Amino acid sequence: MSTIAVDAMGGDSAPKEIVKGAILAKENGVDVILSGDKTLIESYLEGVKIPVVDYPEVISMEDNPARAIRTKKNASILGALQLVKENKADGVFSAGSTGATLVGSISILGKSKGVLRPAIAAVLPGIESGTILLDSGSSLDVKPKVLLQYGAMGSKLAEIIFEINNPKIGLLNNGEEESKGRDIERSAYKLLKSSNLNFIGNIEGRDFANSKADVFITDGFTGNIVLKTMEGTAKLQQKLIANALKDKLFKPLLIPVKNAMKPAKDKLDPDKTNASYLLGVNGLVIIGHGSSTAEGVKNAIIYTNTSAKKGFINKFTNTISEL
Amino acid sequence: MSTIAVDAMGGDSAPKEIVKGAILAKENGVDVILSGDKTLIESYLEGVKIPVVDYPEVISMEDNPARAIRTKKNASILGALQLVKENKADGVFSAGSTGATLVGSISILGKSKGVLRPAIAAVLPGIESGTILLDSGSSLDVKPKVLLQYGAMGSKLAEIIFEINNPKIGLLNNGEEESKGRDIERSAYKLLKSSNLNFIGNIEGRDFANSKADVFITDGFTGNIVLKTMEGTAKLQQKLIANALKDKLFKPLLIPVKNAMKPAKDKLDPDKTNASYLLGVNGLVIIGHGSSTAEGVKNAIIYTNTSAKKGFINKFTNTISEL
Repeated sequence: MSTIAVDAMGGDSAPKEIVKGAILAKENGVDVILSGDKTLIESYLEGVKIPVVDYPEVISMEDNPARAIRTKKNASILGALQLVKENKADGVFSAGSTGATLVGSISILGKSKGVLRPAIAAVLPGIESGTILLDSGSSLDVKPKVLLQYGAMGSKLAEIIFEINNPKIGLLNNGEEESKGRDIERSAYKLLKSSNLNFIGNIEGRDFANSKADVFITDGFTGNIVLKTMEGTAKLQQKLIANALKDKLFKPLLIPVKNAMKPAKDKLDPDKTNASYLLGVNGLVIIGHGSSTAEGVKNAIIYTNTSAKKGFINKFTNTISEL
Repeated sequence: MSTIAVDAMGGDSAPKEIVKGAILAKENGVDVILSGDKTLIESYLEGVKIPVVDYPEVISMEDNPARAIRTKKNASILGALQLVKENKADGVFSAGSTGATLVGSISILGKSKGVLRPAIAAVLPGIESGTILLDSGSSLDVKPKVLLQYGAMGSKLAEIIFEINNPKIGLLNNGEEESKGRDIERSAYKLLKSSNLNFIGNIEGRDFANSKADVFITDGFTGNIVLKTMEGTAKLQQKLIANALKDKLFKPLLIPVKNAMKPAKDKLDPDKTNASYLLGVNGLVIIGHGSSTAEGVKNAIIYTNTSAKKGFINKFTNTISEL
């Protein structure tokens, strides 16, 4: 049995949507502990029995993460992480400031053995199976060796969550040839090629549409831009399609067609899809989209629970030393 | 009256599709001159009267652009550029190696006065109007001042092709706050803010779905990744939608719905949309997608002709000195 600690104060609609999501997750059989402003949270719980630890301070998106972690000792994210540190929970979910979750996780749980930089790994939809993109925003500028470690961590994550052997690792670059890219890509290419990973070479942004690689590696600046460009492009195309259908389709068909397309739209909607993993810290930490609704929070908590039950952290222990 | 020089040997299906596209453009009233292997081209022209200059060498995607430009003096792209240099044509269109077009343009036409680095500006679709993204791949690593110049060149391009005043310029970054980004983004932000451009601040990948900015500025590595990620995401979503419709929609509706969506899909298809501008050289140079079909080539040639008629190059002359 596993228990998930939830940062109840993190997210655009916290604590309301987070608490509602936690109630839904509990109804789906997940043991949850909430961390946050106890009085406020209990007013939203309306009698539902979910334990709460009182960490009433909130780290907002405007706060400097490193400073906030030092000065707001009773911040909700810290309470949630503390529960994992003390083995009272098996994983943390937060839809709050990504920076605060990152800095707090390093500070409370510690970096995993040998890890130079933790990374945020986003799980993206694909046609046949999903795709992992890392780093999607934790370190903007990194050294080639860090990209190699991202390859190892991404490979392990793909093994666990996609249940596949030897995941295919690709380096995101501006062309397929070995000579492509900036200095960092050319150096990382050599390191990845001589590693024991299943490195398939350089891959491009257009490969998100096929199953060429299971894991896309890049620096956190590029990864963040890619993730948001995917979101923007999906929305742009949805608007273009909606306009085209309005122009060309027999009106009574609009609603059934819209309904039929919905599952496809949802797959590329960050509010509705699975959250991101923080890799390289001594604990299971999952980061959700700030605008997550109760439904999204519920899904992410269930997802965190599934990862915990798969023995996520034990399987990760030797990732870097095996490289 | 303007004349467009076309690199007949550049592109995955050159010269066949290029020549066919040139014939279609001529039928639409554009004066075209083809540069390439005269005998081969004439076999595809099948008697259609289009002048050909004999530059039979081909620079392939595998060639090192700088070396190829030096060693293949009779390369088709050089013949096309030479026509502009000698005032025999008002613009060049090539679907061949982007690197060769870039190096060749700098070598034959020269960089415009004050320009540090030429840039490739892609014209992307939008809901209300289009969006310009530069640099989309000519210089992978640049200095902050180069990003400022991209802002000025992108602003001028938006004025000319969208016919708007004071285009909104945004810096592509991993967040909206002034403090976001790597050193280069933080420095470029300051330069852009104190310039006479209509700089609206940092913008994110998700802003491609709205009309927040007319011009998105970034380095060529990030720009290239963004462009290809847009392509990949659009295709991924199209596949997801096609699968969802197949699952959920009454079968006889599939074809009419697919037909109704087609204009929206085409807008995000690089083979069908407008090509990219090479900015910062002394001549109008437009770069097409390598996989362009005859239809795409025709559209791009017409587009090049429209830009030439708008007095593109004259309007660009003082862009950097006015900054």
